[in-house]
Amino acid sequence: MKQPRVVKSDIAWATPEKIVIHGLDLCNDIVGKFDLGQMAFLEVFARVPNEAELRMFNAMMVVLVEHGITPSSLATRLTVCGAPEAVQGAIAAGLLSLGSVFVGSIDNAARMLQEALVDAPADAELDAIATRIVADFKSRREIIPGIGHPFHKPIDPRTPALFKVAEETGFNGRYVALMEKIGAEAARVSKRELPVNVTGAMAAIASEFGVSWKVVRGLAVAARAIGLVGHVMEEMRQPMGDEIYYRMEEEAARHLRPAI
Amino acid sequence: MKQPRVVKSDIAWATPEKIVIHGLDLCNDIVGKFDLGQMAFLEVFARVPNEAELRMFNAMMVVLVEHGITPSSLATRLTVCGAPEAVQGAIAAGLLSLGSVFVGSIDNAARMLQEALVDAPADAELDAIATRIVADFKSRREIIPGIGHPFHKPIDPRTPALFKVAEETGFNGRYVALMEKIGAEAARVSKRELPVNVTGAMAAIASEFGVSWKVVRGLAVAARAIGLVGHVMEEMRQPMGDEIYYRMEEEAARHLRPAI
Amino acid sequence: MKQPRVVKSDIAWATPEKIVIHGLDLCNDIVGKFDLGQMAFLEVFARVPNEAELRMFNAMMVVLVEHGITPSSLATRLTVCGAPEAVQGAIAAGLLSLGSVFVGSIDNAARMLQEALVDAPADAELDAIATRIVADFKSRREIIPGIGHPFHKPIDPRTPALFKVAEETGFNGRYVALMEKIGAEAARVSKRELPVNVTGAMAAIASEFGVSWKVVRGLAVAARAIGLVGHVMEEMRQPMGDEIYYRMEEEAARHLRPAI
Amino acid sequence: MKQPRVVKSDIAWATPEKIVIHGLDLCNDIVGKFDLGQMAFLEVFARVPNEAELRMFNAMMVVLVEHGITPSSLATRLTVCGAPEAVQGAIAAGLLSLGSVFVGSIDNAARMLQEALVDAPADAELDAIATRIVADFKSRREIIPGIGHPFHKPIDPRTPALFKVAEETGFNGRYVALMEKIGAEAARVSKRELPVNVTGAMAAIASEFGVSWKVVRGLAVAARAIGLVGHVMEEMRQPMGDEIYYRMEEEAARHLRPAI
Repeated sequence: MKQPRVVKSDIAWATPEKIVIHGLDLCNDIVGKFDLGQMAFLEVFARVPNEAELRMFNAMMVVLVEHGITPSSLATRLTVCGAPEAVQGAIAAGLLSLGSVFVGSIDNAARMLQEALVDAPADAELDAIATRIVADFKSRREIIPGIGHPFHKPIDPRTPALFKVAEETGFNGRYVALMEKIGAEAARVSKRELPVNVTGAMAAIASEFGVSWKVVRGLAVAARAIGLVGHVMEEMRQPMGDEIYYRMEEEAARHLRPAI
Repeated sequence: MKQPRVVKSDIAWATPEKIVIHGLDLCNDIVGKFDLGQMAFLEVFARVPNEAELRMFNAMMVVLVEHGITPSSLATRLTVCGAPEAVQGAIAAGLLSLGSVFVGSIDNAARMLQEALVDAPADAELDAIATRIVADFKSRREIIPGIGHPFHKPIDPRTPALFKVAEETGFNGRYVALMEKIGAEAARVSKRELPVNVTGAMAAIASEFGVSWKVVRGLAVAARAIGLVGHVMEEMRQPMGDEIYYRMEEEAARHLRPAI
Repeated sequence: MKQPRVVKSDIAWATPEKIVIHGLDLCNDIVGKFDLGQMAFLEVFARVPNEAELRMFNAMMVVLVEHGITPSSLATRLTVCGAPEAVQGAIAAGLLSLGSVFVGSIDNAARMLQEALVDAPADAELDAIATRIVADFKSRREIIPGIGHPFHKPIDPRTPALFKVAEETGFNGRYVALMEKIGAEAARVSKRELPVNVTGAMAAIASEFGVSWKVVRGLAVAARAIGLVGHVMEEMRQPMGDEIYYRMEEEAARHLRPAI
Repeated sequence: MKQPRVVKSDIAWATPEKIVIHGLDLCNDIVGKFDLGQMAFLEVFARVPNEAELRMFNAMMVVLVEHGITPSSLATRLTVCGAPEAVQGAIAAGLLSLGSVFVGSIDNAARMLQEALVDAPADAELDAIATRIVADFKSRREIIPGIGHPFHKPIDPRTPALFKVAEETGFNGRYVALMEKIGAEAARVSKRELPVNVTGAMAAIASEFGVSWKVVRGLAVAARAIGLVGHVMEEMRQPMGDEIYYRMEEEAARHLRPAI
């Protein structure tokens, strides 16, 4: 028979009198003192950020909170339409589309960067690495993650905004440099503009923070959960879900209905 | 045939060059300048908070981010165990248990407070209202939401922490006062300690902010989404999901398996 | 310290050589012998159905599998659009809108019926009970669940179809009779047609089966999960999610974008 | 500006008087006549099955409905514990763990088979193909999907059960043969037993049916949704969620709590 392993979490513990999160007393050290960015940093890194870290982290988190009407916010709003009493379900529904097509491409960009530099010496030639990465993707006929954007072109305005903060806070390290070099090399090879997009920028900065590509999508998901609260609220006072339902039901089945 | 209504959202719009959220330019006004608390406030209230509002809002948001191992974080961890590549699903799974038993009771407390004061004149006698509410719940044999806690007793330490910030920021208005009076009256009637718990405190403060009881749960859900990122990260480096699975599978079916 | 309670499930157990579900050997007794309806019945009632039970149960289950383009199938399709690799998330997203507005109203209808008859003697006067229920709802200004339909009017065609099978299989008992009497009485009082709708019919039949109103929604959710597979498949070969996204994004923000 | 594409679904349409699904009238052709397996087949293949197809399809669907206490059923039960009123959320939570580790591996097995035979001539040498596939996985140091099982060993009893039905119904075609040859070749190369497991068997049979590997996971997800209804029902009358919560909370944080 299998020997049981211990079940163990280092995140938090509580007594009736207090709740302790990563060593801090929630009621005395956090409530009234921390902003939501510091709290999120504490969750992710198990420690309190310094000023530069917090500014960079906040910049990365706020950038994906809201992008208006998208498959994500539409799924939330349609769920409100059917289950307004279960707000947790509406927000969950909106998060479920944050996969490989939108937002989740951050994983692939972070993986590309982290695997490229994991064993690289400190003085590795980033130009050569970028050239090799672009050639590899090209030979596999795969899309390079983190560059180009179907709508925000020629450049995704969020990237220079994030990279400016990275420069001001000292987060413009090797991952940021490599991401930019990959964009430049891809542009050179394909002969069109392919600048770093927001997921590429976030992937580079999250890599500077040491966040593994396996969980980096979680940061985007948490940020979007905040934005979806705004969509739940608006859907309740100014709904669009039922109107979308009626229009699409009518249009989708029009070719099937017998003419009257 | 039905006349189509317009589909309209006032939250955000974008051109290839910029993204505007509640009138602010994401790249110029928000990234590098807003912390995550300000961004969340902007999402919820469609405007920038002043200092007192932001401090109170942050206090309310940080308080429910993390509570260690709970049904919510366990569901997230078990989902990581089966689908580590779909982090959005793991976080969504953990949010789905934020219903009527945990966290969601905030709705009922907020509804109780908001319905009591919706038509009440500014000088309404809160003592009388509290007495009537407690008597009403007692006569319907229903549990009064927002008071008492099975573990954090005699008092939930998060409540005085939140109410202290409310006092310091001027958010200690009628809803906070009524919530406290309901706790006191319930204790008097039932002859046991029934102080305001964290959901009661959050419900009162959210009501001071003008957040409808119909969406107040959304704030808790967004806060918890942040906390669940921490659990996804820990589960990946120090898993418990598979161990819980093996133990529970073995124990749950023990009475069914033939003795060997 | 709390004494641990035993964790126990009576549903299934397995050894390396076999899997036993409610006493039946999956590989020898079920695979190749059971259809999906029998398997679902076994899950829900922990026993094998007789012929009449199976026919009635299948009728109840098939009726909610598919209803074309709805908030539920739209949420699934929009999720496919963003996360085609996580089919489990797309189906989950579509299930989350099965709440109080669509489908979930089955709970309220079943509760109404079950609470009315729980202590009623076998020869209780159903007419009098129906009259009292309608008067009670009217006095509380609440909508009576399970009657009327915004689109399928004057009658929901699924109801006579289900009630016909109920008659043929002997499932036309007191719950079915009471549901019909409630519809008739509501129509008499409100002076408009208010026949039993599909959720009312399902609620009545599920009550005949002894399914508690607390879980009856689960049957509809499982049925719909099957239907959503069809929508995932169609969305992959003939997508509408991205088109809905583009149209709605454009229309929703039109009033915010500066004229060019 | 983009030209709108038509939004179109061929699945269903409705008038107030009737609902038509893949050309069949729900109330006249389906309710009372179809079992749940036929209905699921209709959803997936847009046509009515013949007897052999239905028997094979039912066998494939029933096999994954239930596997006792697993991460999937545990997530459902923990969600019931917090949100018993939102049954749709509890079932959705349980589905979200059906990813790459459990169940979802069916995608990889189906992809392996389908990509191997997509352009293969009818008389292709399956032995040579199996040898090449096993060598390719070995050279990439990747696990071959669909073979071996950590618990059901040496053989997964569901595979011979499914393949027996395949033989009896004429579904033992090239995909089934190739899957078996891959298992045999992998066993030969690695010098240990590696027979086809249930996801390998389902992947092969779904491929015989022509279901694309991109959606095959959906069949397993729908099957499991049915099983999770049973877990919701049992959790309500005989809960384990709260006990798991208390035990794990206590154990996980034991090393953090100060000794008393």
